[in-house]
Amino acid sequence: MSAEEDRLARITWSLVAEPSDAVALLARTALGAGAALELAREASAAEALQLLGGSIPGDPATDGGASDPRRRLEQALARWRSRLRHVDVPAQLARAERDGIRVLVPGDPQWPTALDDLEVAAPHCLWVLGDEDPCLPGTQGSVAVVGSRASSPYGEDVAGGMSAALASRGIAVISGGAYGIDAAAHRGALAAGAAPTLAVLAGGLDALYPRGNARLLETIRDRHALLSEAPPGTAPTRWRFLARNRLIAALAQVTVVVEASWRSGALSTARRADDLSRTVAAVPGPVTSAASAGCHRLIRERGAVLVTGGDDVLELLPGADPVAEAAGPQDELDLFSPADRRVLDAVPPRSATTCDRLAVIVDRTPEEIRAALGRLELFGAVRIAGEQVRRARG
Amino acid sequence: MSAEEDRLARITWSLVAEPSDAVALLARTALGAGAALELAREASAAEALQLLGGSIPGDPATDGGASDPRRRLEQALARWRSRLRHVDVPAQLARAERDGIRVLVPGDPQWPTALDDLEVAAPHCLWVLGDEDPCLPGTQGSVAVVGSRASSPYGEDVAGGMSAALASRGIAVISGGAYGIDAAAHRGALAAGAAPTLAVLAGGLDALYPRGNARLLETIRDRHALLSEAPPGTAPTRWRFLARNRLIAALAQVTVVVEASWRSGALSTARRADDLSRTVAAVPGPVTSAASAGCHRLIRERGAVLVTGGDDVLELLPGADPVAEAAGPQDELDLFSPADRRVLDAVPPRSATTCDRLAVIVDRTPEEIRAALGRLELFGAVRIAGEQVRRARG
Repeated sequence: MSAEEDRLARITWSLVAEPSDAVALLARTALGAGAALELAREASAAEALQLLGGSIPGDPATDGGASDPRRRLEQALARWRSRLRHVDVPAQLARAERDGIRVLVPGDPQWPTALDDLEVAAPHCLWVLGDEDPCLPGTQGSVAVVGSRASSPYGEDVAGGMSAALASRGIAVISGGAYGIDAAAHRGALAAGAAPTLAVLAGGLDALYPRGNARLLETIRDRHALLSEAPPGTAPTRWRFLARNRLIAALAQVTVVVEASWRSGALSTARRADDLSRTVAAVPGPVTSAASAGCHRLIRERGAVLVTGGDDVLELLPGADPVAEAAGPQDELDLFSPADRRVLDAVPPRSATTCDRLAVIVDRTPEEIRAALGRLELFGAVRIAGEQVRRARG
Repeated sequence: MSAEEDRLARITWSLVAEPSDAVALLARTALGAGAALELAREASAAEALQLLGGSIPGDPATDGGASDPRRRLEQALARWRSRLRHVDVPAQLARAERDGIRVLVPGDPQWPTALDDLEVAAPHCLWVLGDEDPCLPGTQGSVAVVGSRASSPYGEDVAGGMSAALASRGIAVISGGAYGIDAAAHRGALAAGAAPTLAVLAGGLDALYPRGNARLLETIRDRHALLSEAPPGTAPTRWRFLARNRLIAALAQVTVVVEASWRSGALSTARRADDLSRTVAAVPGPVTSAASAGCHRLIRERGAVLVTGGDDVLELLPGADPVAEAAGPQDELDLFSPADRRVLDAVPPRSATTCDRLAVIVDRTPEEIRAALGRLELFGAVRIAGEQVRRARG
């Protein structure tokens, strides 16, 4: 079958099957997307069983936990067919295109081949919103910085500072776009600006979730990219979040958990990274803080590397060059408070920005931003002309 | 030579040689204390070289760093002889006895045989002030809880709580009696009361150092014991502190570093414990806290086990029984604030105590103690009769 047919078959699968539909993933991997789709349309459970063999996994998201392989296949065929009856692939693609959403499949030059390490669990395709190339050319590595939604100010500061340090060294920062640690990681990377930050979402890219992060996600979309294996119109659900975590783990060479409670979802991302033989690292915190209990557990029980900041993480990236990109501006930063530094970091090296845009990136009020810009201008670090803010040097 | 002669020879060595005098330790180990003393009195450097062989270590505390073995022996013989001329062993022992200071040597039933693991570095003898038996019979294990003098309130709380939890499980808590983490560890163990806490000091036991901890050290002396390899009249010096650390590491089955800066003396105790193949553990803290940097370094670079509290430490003690001693009173403690719990913990299970004594142990003002006792009495946890305070139950 042609590459175009394979592409359409994969897109159809992403419209028909849950990300966590292990039977669909198995069928696609065993037969190829197109042949698997024919099976979905026409085969009987008996024929499917013959083609796929007896070890049919359950789908925790959808099946009733049937233990009999043939029964599981009947359930799978049933759920696929009911969806196939209603799915209109060309219409879906047209709507996605109107929303600026691209689709990538294996073989596309922009396909992040790191996802192939997931093997049978690799997504059928990837929906992309934004200009950034998800295979991240020109970056010196990629790190997932993840953690609890219920984060502490301490955790958010560490996540932001670590991500800014990594991005300033040309490392792409990947996270889940959620509240708390994820948002702090994206903001830190946006502030440093030197490398892309990607948000991998659990739902469709036509509705940015969580709503409270809409402006942050829009900024990531405008400057870099949002990714999802779920087609537009898909609501994020618990199972889709858990399935999404494997993509974050696969896209990154190192997964850093900054804060996680004893049973945080971030631990599942660490587990997936472990499964992929990726390096897992965790940031310690006060033993009195429940938000750090999961990190301490990872270090104590699951061999995660203890990291205290961006430099520790860089040591875990064989490819990374600790000195690249650090350079000039860093020196003058020592003049300013950490808060003002964040603002200065958020001013692009070569282009102009605005106070409002900085407010989104740094997550401060425009008034606070103006005050910081005043101090920065006083020390000759930025030039302000009307609404336009530029770096005075570089 | 008789056991009594060996005892006197060892005591003489502790009066003549620095704890860190590696040549003295070597001679004693190679020839026995008595014969080594004869060598110190009469041998020429040439004869000594013949008896001890060519690998004569330097003494960082005293020698000029002579690299030639014969020269080192000349220096050693010179420093020993000048001291031997002035030392009056019977007078020293009589004075120690007046101060209530005992001397223990290997072979004594109370000698802590754990020190023998130090081999050539084992102390000549041990000076003991207090009733506690340094070989800690009846305890379920021993843990060294050490850390920076420049500690944070966080570190002191963790050290105190961890030590109280360990002592309440019958684990002896060993530390150095210094300001900061050491003091918090001793206080926590005293508060739990169920197991001894020993302070190993770097100077002579006739002058309790640091002065600011005098009342705490007196309490440890009265309830348990103070130990030192240095005879009465010895001032604590940097080298004696470093030498002392090996005793703490050897006496404990596990060494826990609660807080340590990047170059803290507590790291040397961890190193000694490592050398002895003892388990080293460290407590994490905020990565933003310099007081935790050494602990993070131990975990990240030197394989220390991350521990978050007493239960984690208990898991590192094969002999320990996590449930023993916990029991009854614990339940009612949930009624009270942590501060009040510390006070209740400090009230002996079966005997009476006083407000002033509690003030020392818990390190609060008598006024704070009275307020806490009022609340505890209100809930029927303690009975107060005049100055006498008792547990209402048990």
